[in-house]
Amino acid sequence: MTLNGLESLIPDSRRVIFDSDIEEKYLSDTLGRLKGRAKALVFPESVREVSDIMKYAYDHKIPVTPRGAGTNLVGSTVPADGGIVLDLSRMNRVLEIDKDTFTATVEPGVVLKDFQELVEQEGLFYPPDPGEKTATIGGNISTNAGGMRAVKYGVTRDYIRGLEVVLADGSVAELGGKVVKDSSGLSLKHLMIGSEGTLGVITKAIVKLIAKPQESLSVLLPFNDLHTGIRAVLNVIRGNLDPTAIEFVEKKVVALGEEYVGLAFPYQDAAAYILLTFDGDDLEEIYKRVEKLRIIAKESGAKDALVLRDGETIDTVWKIRGALVKAVEAKSEQEPVDIVVPINKSAEFIEYINDLEQKTGVQMVSFGHAGDGNVHLCVVRGGRTQEQWEKDRKEVLASAYDKSSELGGLTSGEHGIGLSKKKYLKKAADPLNLQMMKQVKLSLDPKNILNPNKIFD
Amino acid sequence: MTLNGLESLIPDSRRVIFDSDIEEKYLSDTLGRLKGRAKALVFPESVREVSDIMKYAYDHKIPVTPRGAGTNLVGSTVPADGGIVLDLSRMNRVLEIDKDTFTATVEPGVVLKDFQELVEQEGLFYPPDPGEKTATIGGNISTNAGGMRAVKYGVTRDYIRGLEVVLADGSVAELGGKVVKDSSGLSLKHLMIGSEGTLGVITKAIVKLIAKPQESLSVLLPFNDLHTGIRAVLNVIRGNLDPTAIEFVEKKVVALGEEYVGLAFPYQDAAAYILLTFDGDDLEEIYKRVEKLRIIAKESGAKDALVLRDGETIDTVWKIRGALVKAVEAKSEQEPVDIVVPINKSAEFIEYINDLEQKTGVQMVSFGHAGDGNVHLCVVRGGRTQEQWEKDRKEVLASAYDKSSELGGLTSGEHGIGLSKKKYLKKAADPLNLQMMKQVKLSLDPKNILNPNKIFD
Repeated sequence: MTLNGLESLIPDSRRVIFDSDIEEKYLSDTLGRLKGRAKALVFPESVREVSDIMKYAYDHKIPVTPRGAGTNLVGSTVPADGGIVLDLSRMNRVLEIDKDTFTATVEPGVVLKDFQELVEQEGLFYPPDPGEKTATIGGNISTNAGGMRAVKYGVTRDYIRGLEVVLADGSVAELGGKVVKDSSGLSLKHLMIGSEGTLGVITKAIVKLIAKPQESLSVLLPFNDLHTGIRAVLNVIRGNLDPTAIEFVEKKVVALGEEYVGLAFPYQDAAAYILLTFDGDDLEEIYKRVEKLRIIAKESGAKDALVLRDGETIDTVWKIRGALVKAVEAKSEQEPVDIVVPINKSAEFIEYINDLEQKTGVQMVSFGHAGDGNVHLCVVRGGRTQEQWEKDRKEVLASAYDKSSELGGLTSGEHGIGLSKKKYLKKAADPLNLQMMKQVKLSLDPKNILNPNKIFD
Repeated sequence: MTLNGLESLIPDSRRVIFDSDIEEKYLSDTLGRLKGRAKALVFPESVREVSDIMKYAYDHKIPVTPRGAGTNLVGSTVPADGGIVLDLSRMNRVLEIDKDTFTATVEPGVVLKDFQELVEQEGLFYPPDPGEKTATIGGNISTNAGGMRAVKYGVTRDYIRGLEVVLADGSVAELGGKVVKDSSGLSLKHLMIGSEGTLGVITKAIVKLIAKPQESLSVLLPFNDLHTGIRAVLNVIRGNLDPTAIEFVEKKVVALGEEYVGLAFPYQDAAAYILLTFDGDDLEEIYKRVEKLRIIAKESGAKDALVLRDGETIDTVWKIRGALVKAVEAKSEQEPVDIVVPINKSAEFIEYINDLEQKTGVQMVSFGHAGDGNVHLCVVRGGRTQEQWEKDRKEVLASAYDKSSELGGLTSGEHGIGLSKKKYLKKAADPLNLQMMKQVKLSLDPKNILNPNKIFD
C-alpha cells in the first residue's frame, strides 16, 4: 500500500516523510527496544492538518500512532501495525496564560520543562512533575503522568480542564473548558486522559495552574537499616504533614546516583533514606510541620532529620535523586516498572522486592514515590545474555506484578500500559474490565485505527 | 407486560413492590414535578441481588432506573420509560474506614450527612459538601456532586478511588481501588462518575478521606451595591488565599433566608455580601490569610470584613445561607439552575441575570458558588398560571443558558442533566459530543436499559 495523496494534505513537503526516509527514533519509544514500522511520518502544525490526516487515515483504514517527544517507557509510541506516525511536537505553542481563571491553553507539543519555567516566571505553578521533563504536555495527558509532587498535588488528570481532540474520523471534539465544575453528561474528557492515543489525538489542552508556592524546603531522614526506613514511611504519611513529596531510597541505590553525578549525599552513614519536600507561602508554618516531622522521625528510628533549604546541599540531593534511572542505565540495560500499591503497602512491597532480589539474583533497584504507593523498579540486566535476560526478567516481573495484585495494586501508576505492559495488565485486570475498555474503544474508533493494539489486543 | 419471576430474585417479598402499590415518590425526583411509571420497585440489599435484577432486566429488556435518596433536581430518578425502579437506600453500610490509606469503603445508600459525621468522629474529613446532606454517596457519585467546599477541595469525582459497578447485563466490575495513582488503561471509573446511572449501578465505592482540618473560620464582606460586590469576587479569587468557599449573595436574597429562619445577618446595611470560609490546622496561619483578605476587601470596596469564628453569629450566617433554596420554595415553586461559567465570568453572568430579571419581570434569585463559577439560580414562579409559567420560564432559561454558552460555560456544574436539562444540553453542547456520549453509552449498555433517555435521547 502506498499513501497516495497524503502529501497533498500538508503544504510543506518536508513535513511528510515516507518509508525508508523515516528515522528509526520515530518508530520506537525512549527505550528503543521495541521497533515498529511506518509508511509515513507527518508533522502537523494545526488541528486542521491533524483532522485532514485522520480523515485520510479513516477513509483508507490506515493505523495512526500519535507521538510527542517520544519519551514514553512502554511502547505507546511504537507504530506496531505500521501506517502513519503523527508527530505533534511542532504544535508547541502556549496559546494563553489566563491569570484570572488560573489556566493555560497549550498545544500538545509544548515541552513540560519549558512550560513549567514559563508559568513560574508569571508567578504561577503547574504541579504535575514526572521525572522526564522533556516530555510533552500532550504525552503527559495521554499517560496521565504523575511524578513526585503527586502526594500533595495529584497527577496530570487533576490539572486538565479542557481538551480539543481529533477523533478517528477526523472530527474535532471540544471537551470540558475553562470551567471548574462539570456535571454535564458523560465525562469524555476524563475518558481521553490516560487513553494513550487510542481514542483521539489531543490537539489542545486547557490546564489548571495554581499560584506558585513562595517557599519550599526538603528534609532528609537517614536510617540505619532498610526495614526501619521503609516502616517509617507509613508513620510519616499518617502524620498528616501535607508534604509535597515523600521519596524512599536505599543507600545502595543512592550510591549509584552519587557515582553517576560525582556528588555525595550530605549524610553518608545510613542504609536508607526518606526524602521529603514541603512547600507553602509561609515559612514559619512550614517549619511547624517540619518540627512535627522531627518527632515522628525520631519515634520511627530515623538517625537525624536534616533540613535542606537553599544552596548546594539541596541541589546535590535532588540532582542525585533525579539521576537514579540514568545512573542505572549507564551501567546496564534495565526494564522500568511503575507498579502502584495502596500507600500502606509500599513497605511490604519494597521488602518483597528485596527478598525477590536475594532469591533470584536479579538486581531490582527500587526507589520512587513511597508517599503515593507508586514504587519504581529498575530491573537490571547486568551481564546476562539476551536469552537469560528474557527468562529472568519474565520470572521476576511475573512475581512483582502478582505481588502487586495481591496487595490491591495496579499495573501502572504513571507510565501507562502501551505495548510492554499489556500482558501484565491482561493478567492483573479482570477480563470484564478489558472487555469494557475494548467496547468503549470501538465505540469511538470503530475501524480501530487509533494507536491500535495498545493497552489491550 | 408483567414481571414474572422478579420476586423470586429477592428473598423478602416486602422488598419487591409491584404496579399500583408503588408510592408516588419513587416515580419522581425531589421536586416531584416530573412523574414516571414503573412495573416494579425493588430494594436490593447486596451486589448479588443487584446483579440478579440486572440480569433479569437484561434478558427481558426492561428499563431500570437506579435511585438513592431521590434528592436529585433534574429528573435523573424519574422512571420515564417504565420498568424497574432500583432503590439502593438499603445498601447503606460503611464497610471500612481505613486510616492508613485515608479511605473509606461504603455502600451506595450511605447518607452523606451520616458519613460526614462518622468520619469526623475519627478525625477524618470527607470534603465534598453539596447542599443536600440527605443525599446518598451513590447519588453524589452519579451526578458528580460539588458544593461549597469545591473551591479548595474539588468535587465528588476527586474523592473517588474505586467503584464496584453492576453493568447492564448483571456483570460486576471493579474499577480503580485503594491506590492513589492509576495509569492502567482507559479510565472506566471516571467514565462512571457523573453518568447518572446510565452506564451501571454503583454498588460500592472506595472514597478518599483527608485529615480533618483543626481550625476554621468565616469572613463576611458586606458591600454597598451589587456591582461592587460582584466585581470584588474576582479580586478575592486572584488574591490566592486558599479559601474553602467563596459565596456571593445579594441582600435581597439574604432577606428571604432571614425571614424563613427567623434570624438576621450580623451586618444589615449592605446590598450584597461575599461570604468566605478558611480552614487549616494552624489558626495563626489562617489569620495571616485573613489579613491579606482585609486588604483586598478594602481595596475592592467592601464596607467591612467581619471575622466569624465560634458561636452564634457564624451559625446564624450559615443557617441563613443554607436555607436559601428552602426559603424561596416556601414562597413559590421554583426551577433550579446550576450553570457553571469560568470563574472570571461569574460577575458578568450574575449581572446579566439581574438585567434579565429587570427586563422580563421573572424573579431569578441568584446565589451560590461564586468562587468556582457555579452560579445557582432559582427561577421563581410566583403567581403565574401554569401556561404563563411555562412560557416565561422557557424564555428566561433559554437566555440564561445562551449567555452561559457565550461565556464558555456549561449546562450543569453539579446537579447533572437528567430529564429536565436535556434540551439545554442539546442546545449548548456540540452534536458531536452528544453523539460520542451515545456511542459510549451503547457500547456498555447495548439494549439501552440503564436509566434510558437521561442526559440525551
